Amino acid sequence: MAKEKKVEQITDMERDFAQWYTDVVTRAELIGYSGVKGFFILRPYGYAIWENIQAYLDGKFKELGHENVSMPLLIPESLLQKEKDHVAGFAPECAWVTFGGAEELEERLCIRPTSETLFCDHWSDTVQSHRDLPKLYNQWCSVLRWEKSTRPFLRHREFLWQEGHTLHAAADEAIQETEQMLEVYAECYENLLAMPFIKGRKTDSDKFAGAERTYTCECMMRDGKALQACTSHYFGDGFARAFEITYQDKEGKLAYPHQTSWGLSTRSIAGLIMTHGDNNGPVMPPRVAPIQVVVIPVASHKPGVSEAARALLNTLKAAGIRAKIDESDNSPGWKFAEYEMRGVPLRVELGPRDIEMGKCVAVRRVDGAKEEIAIADIAIRVPEILDEIHYAMFEKAARYLSANTHSAATIEDAQAIYSARGGFIKTAWCGEEACEDKMKEIASISSRCIPFDDAVPERGAVCAVCGKPAVNNVIWGAAY
Amino acid sequence: MAKEKKVEQITDMERDFAQWYTDVVTRAELIGYSGVKGFFILRPYGYAIWENIQAYLDGKFKELGHENVSMPLLIPESLLQKEKDHVAGFAPECAWVTFGGAEELEERLCIRPTSETLFCDHWSDTVQSHRDLPKLYNQWCSVLRWEKSTRPFLRHREFLWQEGHTLHAAADEAIQETEQMLEVYAECYENLLAMPFIKGRKTDSDKFAGAERTYTCECMMRDGKALQACTSHYFGDGFARAFEITYQDKEGKLAYPHQTSWGLSTRSIAGLIMTHGDNNGPVMPPRVAPIQVVVIPVASHKPGVSEAARALLNTLKAAGIRAKIDESDNSPGWKFAEYEMRGVPLRVELGPRDIEMGKCVAVRRVDGAKEEIAIADIAIRVPEILDEIHYAMFEKAARYLSANTHSAATIEDAQAIYSARGGFIKTAWCGEEACEDKMKEIASISSRCIPFDDAVPERGAVCAVCGKPAVNNVIWGAAY
Repeated sequence: MAKEKKVEQITDMERDFAQWYTDVVTRAELIGYSGVKGFFILRPYGYAIWENIQAYLDGKFKELGHENVSMPLLIPESLLQKEKDHVAGFAPECAWVTFGGAEELEERLCIRPTSETLFCDHWSDTVQSHRDLPKLYNQWCSVLRWEKSTRPFLRHREFLWQEGHTLHAAADEAIQETEQMLEVYAECYENLLAMPFIKGRKTDSDKFAGAERTYTCECMMRDGKALQACTSHYFGDGFARAFEITYQDKEGKLAYPHQTSWGLSTRSIAGLIMTHGDNNGPVMPPRVAPIQVVVIPVASHKPGVSEAARALLNTLKAAGIRAKIDESDNSPGWKFAEYEMRGVPLRVELGPRDIEMGKCVAVRRVDGAKEEIAIADIAIRVPEILDEIHYAMFEKAARYLSANTHSAATIEDAQAIYSARGGFIKTAWCGEEACEDKMKEIASISSRCIPFDDAVPERGAVCAVCGKPAVNNVIWGAAY
Repeated sequence: MAKEKKVEQITDMERDFAQWYTDVVTRAELIGYSGVKGFFILRPYGYAIWENIQAYLDGKFKELGHENVSMPLLIPESLLQKEKDHVAGFAPECAWVTFGGAEELEERLCIRPTSETLFCDHWSDTVQSHRDLPKLYNQWCSVLRWEKSTRPFLRHREFLWQEGHTLHAAADEAIQETEQMLEVYAECYENLLAMPFIKGRKTDSDKFAGAERTYTCECMMRDGKALQACTSHYFGDGFARAFEITYQDKEGKLAYPHQTSWGLSTRSIAGLIMTHGDNNGPVMPPRVAPIQVVVIPVASHKPGVSEAARALLNTLKAAGIRAKIDESDNSPGWKFAEYEMRGVPLRVELGPRDIEMGKCVAVRRVDGAKEEIAIADIAIRVPEILDEIHYAMFEKAARYLSANTHSAATIEDAQAIYSARGGFIKTAWCGEEACEDKMKEIASISSRCIPFDDAVPERGAVCAVCGKPAVNNVIWGAAY
């Protein structure tokens, strides 16, 4: 049964992108469905991707002086309500605990949808002096949001993420932190996940509940839709005032500190699948791939093949490569298909002929390119190939993002271009939410961000929607 | 304020052990209290201990072929009820989610108290053939148990742990796994936490809900009480039958697989504090200490001191030691007390005289022993000293455990010895639960385990309670 399931066809992405995606995440055994809607199982192969992302980010966070903590899972309703914008944003999608054992609780408790309120409550107890600042905290955990429609990795009712929370004496220091952490995420997308992005600032209508500024990386999926891949928020002192967090500054005066938060979740896994995948399954970027290289012995019953293949495996492992061997009694052809469907970046084949000639054959998942490698060179050449694959994947995705981002001068243009070609549309914009609403209504696209690299419109540019003087450029798109 | 709190006295453990413990975990900033009873904050210094335990265990688990996964936080009530013993054990202390957003749920969902039911549900979907076995899974997460009385690290309503869950074709293979994972824990206690233990099997009355066998490591705290430090369970095929997990064996027949689970939690942190701590605070075992060495410059305003101290720090860090420097304007005496109160295993002092003579002074937290070290030897000698401290701490605790474990022939003896001297009592036992109940009633001690090393009573020995022929030796004690 399990095996038959594996050789079932994956729906072509051109025919039905949503079904392609569901096929890929289930067939590759990345995810499992549980008995509760929107609660997914991260199976070993899916969770291992998250572990690699965790290891990368956790290292970066710590290098920059952040410390990990663990905050409670549950938030009293009264605590959630302290910051008015925040509660308005999250209360409608909270899961509520009302009974502990057989006893009904006096106050109901919400399972954290995010933990700003818990960090603030803790800091209001523990921060007194400028000497206590900055606080640079992070936690790895899951959060709950009771969404109506859910999809694997993309939108879970429970999802895994990290949430960083920091508190600073000065506003500019907090803003710098907000920008720095967006940059950490951007580097993670570029260097680990081989995913290009447009970095920018959210418009006011799309900010996080309670934030003064929200920064984002917006990625483009292979159906042209946008994925908000991470966010970093600057809160000013709004939460500090709501939670009465004060500190004595160097002059002895009481002041409110300034706060940030920033998060990246398992959505990033949806992102890498929908950026790099093809009709044979996911294509794992080598640096995050749970299995970077699979060694497949060919005609392994012949003398010496099995030993040579195992020696090859050990050489790869000793070189720090996440390698595995498949010595099962399935046919080589079956195995080729299997690891293609799993998205393993590089397959190394080794048969009796190869061994005679002191070589093996390496096949790249991303484009099927084959290369003969002298067995003696394997520990040097394979890491090079993995790097080449990484850059090839990033370049390919970057070209796609660039080729599918179009400029438009008017809302009619935007509508026409988007309905014909999809992708992202760039226009100048007056700064008014009413124009965002109209763009959504007419062209079915929403503002993704004001791009950092291209925020200022040309001199004399006007809003594509209302024709008034423009204050910013905006990237628009349909979003997951 | 924060600083004043730090120099407050810690209650003497001889005067009030419980208050000593609370003082230690709060003053050393290991834990914080949240707004919900029994939900604690693991502050950076406390969480870093857990991260070190995680890194050690996660490496061992993976070496032994286990894979990490992430299962849902919530369990439908009907799923929890499938295995009758299991639900009876856990339902009374479940926290229940009854609302998702504004909507009342059709079936209430329990926040996982443990995840056997979720793993079983997943396996009933995914296991079909003997080729799918064994499944060797683990997850790092938090679980909830709605306890009446709670204490930092010892008994939380929410606590962090890992839970391993495995499924095997053969019973003996599952039993071997159960024993192997207890051994992994035992090694963790000995090699990482410098804690001795008595390994053994729980009596039937004290088994995990639904288990056929439960193995445990029982540690002795400095007040003589027992801490159940980890458990490993063999389930037989009871869960498989309840959840209809079957596989086709090599002969093509349907069979039920055999199952295990095993867990170690943040209780281990309570254990290391109550094993090693003294009246000045916790004493961190070096291998798990978040800060292994603190460098304290003396007379740091003198030329060259600060530079030499930083060079020393960098040498230590380059040697793979978790070292920090305190260059604050507090006095050296204040700093000595501060890091003593934090339990940092080794303090390295460096003043102008020392620098002239090319040496520094190292002071061991565990016993105050001082040693002069040539600065040139620091990268070799400090790791040696940390290892010496580790063994000294283990030996000291092992002597304590041994000195406070007494044999008794009758229940009257047991009662007399326990009330005079505390600690553990070893007796022969007939195997009847009624005798356990009587021991509890008369001597106020419960069975901790049937010790592996000393399970079989002497020939002709009789139960200390009823006088009938004994089948096992039992270790009794009062337990946290």
